[in-house]
Amino acid sequence: MEYLSVMNAQKCILESVKKLDVESVRLERSLGRVLAEEVRANRDQPPYDVSAMDGYAVRSADLANVSATLAIIEDIKAGDMPRKTVQAGQCARIMTGAPVPQGADAVIRVEDTLAVSNNSVQINRAVQPGNDIRRLGENMCKGEVVLVAGTEITPGVIGILATVKRAQLQVYRRPRVAILSTGNELEGLDEIFDPYKIPNSNSYALMAQLQALGIEPLLLGIARDDPDELAEYLQQGLEFDVLLASGGSSVGVHDYVRPTIEALGVQMKFWRVAMKPGHPVAFGTTQRAEGWLRSSREPPGLPLAGENATADVFVFCLPGNPVSSMVCFEQFVIPALRRMMGHVRLYRRTVQARLAHAVNMRPGRTEFIRVVLSRDDDGSYVATSTGTQSSGVSLSMAKADGLLVVPADSNGLAAGEQVTVQLLDGTVFQDVAGFRE
Amino acid sequence: MEYLSVMNAQKCILESVKKLDVESVRLERSLGRVLAEEVRANRDQPPYDVSAMDGYAVRSADLANVSATLAIIEDIKAGDMPRKTVQAGQCARIMTGAPVPQGADAVIRVEDTLAVSNNSVQINRAVQPGNDIRRLGENMCKGEVVLVAGTEITPGVIGILATVKRAQLQVYRRPRVAILSTGNELEGLDEIFDPYKIPNSNSYALMAQLQALGIEPLLLGIARDDPDELAEYLQQGLEFDVLLASGGSSVGVHDYVRPTIEALGVQMKFWRVAMKPGHPVAFGTTQRAEGWLRSSREPPGLPLAGENATADVFVFCLPGNPVSSMVCFEQFVIPALRRMMGHVRLYRRTVQARLAHAVNMRPGRTEFIRVVLSRDDDGSYVATSTGTQSSGVSLSMAKADGLLVVPADSNGLAAGEQVTVQLLDGTVFQDVAGFRE
Repeated sequence: MEYLSVMNAQKCILESVKKLDVESVRLERSLGRVLAEEVRANRDQPPYDVSAMDGYAVRSADLANVSATLAIIEDIKAGDMPRKTVQAGQCARIMTGAPVPQGADAVIRVEDTLAVSNNSVQINRAVQPGNDIRRLGENMCKGEVVLVAGTEITPGVIGILATVKRAQLQVYRRPRVAILSTGNELEGLDEIFDPYKIPNSNSYALMAQLQALGIEPLLLGIARDDPDELAEYLQQGLEFDVLLASGGSSVGVHDYVRPTIEALGVQMKFWRVAMKPGHPVAFGTTQRAEGWLRSSREPPGLPLAGENATADVFVFCLPGNPVSSMVCFEQFVIPALRRMMGHVRLYRRTVQARLAHAVNMRPGRTEFIRVVLSRDDDGSYVATSTGTQSSGVSLSMAKADGLLVVPADSNGLAAGEQVTVQLLDGTVFQDVAGFRE
Repeated sequence: MEYLSVMNAQKCILESVKKLDVESVRLERSLGRVLAEEVRANRDQPPYDVSAMDGYAVRSADLANVSATLAIIEDIKAGDMPRKTVQAGQCARIMTGAPVPQGADAVIRVEDTLAVSNNSVQINRAVQPGNDIRRLGENMCKGEVVLVAGTEITPGVIGILATVKRAQLQVYRRPRVAILSTGNELEGLDEIFDPYKIPNSNSYALMAQLQALGIEPLLLGIARDDPDELAEYLQQGLEFDVLLASGGSSVGVHDYVRPTIEALGVQMKFWRVAMKPGHPVAFGTTQRAEGWLRSSREPPGLPLAGENATADVFVFCLPGNPVSSMVCFEQFVIPALRRMMGHVRLYRRTVQARLAHAVNMRPGRTEFIRVVLSRDDDGSYVATSTGTQSSGVSLSMAKADGLLVVPADSNGLAAGEQVTVQLLDGTVFQDVAGFRE
């Protein structure tokens, strides 16, 4: 089987996966989900002209010659409705967010006034009509589409959903994901310590990568290198939307994953990608009966949706090497899962950086180099390798801020070259404010 | 009271807050937390020299003249221990991760060999000693510190913790945070619709900003503009580690928050920051009796830690305006909460971008302009305003990728200028892979 390029492998995967079905969630539990419906404004917002400041609602024509002293006819605070009309020579004391009274066409902020008495105020500044007034519907008009289907629910979006009083929302459901590790050499996290075993770290690193996407996976455990045991575990995994199987997928005579998984009806789409680390990584698809997963969510007796009662299952065979497993997850599993959850933004954020040192490279495959990011004086990024890029050094994955992507045709990179770095988890925040105030 | 600069306000806050106490969590629930202990390797990793490839363990001296045909004396897979010593003219079939047998000093990958029979193989390539062998302890040596206290627990770190078999960890606890909205004009999410009310969106946007930090807050609800009712709500909020009170904190005669909160013993540290949006934003501190919160976590009868049974409480009074409230949370609340949780990275990640258009500006305060990020041909960022920067337009906060920071001394920015953009939530992923493969 030939080696696919990273992007052709991504393309192959994304052509197979599609958005999952829709479920209803409460606003308080919706962060990070994707809207499966269009959302409209349920009222004009603001519902009337409101003051943008604490101050006085005035007739701008009264201020042709300032300073001018105006009579205060009313006090209006947010939540009040004005009772009087502002006539020539009059004004109303008004708070931020309070409705602008009839007759007034501008607001003067309190800083530009001088209190004369409880009933009159001296205005020291002329303003244009509309000054410091937020117009009816400035934020949104009743019936207007404020959020389109496919919008990722961020805190700002939750603010809008609360503004239009949507306590319950239609969103795409999250995939159910199972994780399986394979190999006789592996020792489980809660198993008795044996200094000559290899601890099962992949299941937990993958778990955390999934959790960072908002998915709580099931860990199936460790399947030993026995075709029957492996088949039993894989069968369990194929009851989920996605199965991640790490290890045992190489070409060696003792690697049972590929033949076993194919015997279970999984159609392998690719088995080789021209990347480092990452070899071997595979992707396949099959279908499962919809029965038991539906039954846990829906009342019994309901007819099954659609013509046939099956659902897609996607299988990723990831390398047993911990670094390779994580890098393959970044490139292939993340875009697939995010598409299933309805996202438009499928890929890790990238930034441009200056390479701090030369990197030797043989062409032929895309390389992902673990790097730490720091800053130049002008605020731009500098990328420095975490050190040895042996895929056995998993500590470097814990230290890295990102993966520097070296194109497959590169013969090496020079110090100072501009490079592209994919940001990893843990880079949403930085240790300095990073701006001039 | 004078206006503080943004950074002096941040400094004032960070001088007050400190790391919270430590709690024990299970590895599976530790993502995003911060280690409160140093972690050491519990064994050499790998525990012996292992093969990095599927292939043959050989004596490199045997390959002085290739091709050479070697006798296969054994099959070694991961999890096996070799039983034989490789002698001159011999080799062992070996799988990735399997121990290298006595006598062998290199591994030849299967691609560089030709099967002759089940018992012999033709090797077509000479290699140096050590080829494709991962040395004992290459990743970590027993007793070595692999993670220092203060490390943020990312998926890569979880991989390391699983590697050293730490199922249970000491981490800094998360702050307990309460959210209060104030104002007669507000309508709660589940209250009956009144077209002339202002929906309470701030509580939910703040909730989501907290959730994005891994904190599940308590929403206290809406306090009306009545000093007694407000005092009752604020008193409830002061039983938490952090109270966020939005609205009612202006200088208007109907704004009761400041006097009421001071009457409850909160020492206000500042009340004014020279920023837009964001005015007014305040920060204060007080203490609470430790009683009830401890009792929910610890067995009764335990002596209280420390000399006195009080704990710090931090109060942020945020603007009632939804955009201002969110921007103030970004600048002031995030660094405080992240410091409490033990993080070293306290601030939002910033990127440099080219400004797509001119921006008019009056100097005197730091401005935060909501922008969308796109890409230039060379992969660098371009920042474009979301449109009107009226703080009443909360829709623009839902659309924004980041906040462009305009320094307080700026008279305006020209199109094409390099600017600094703070990334907001929802920017961890992007819609294109963004690299050349």
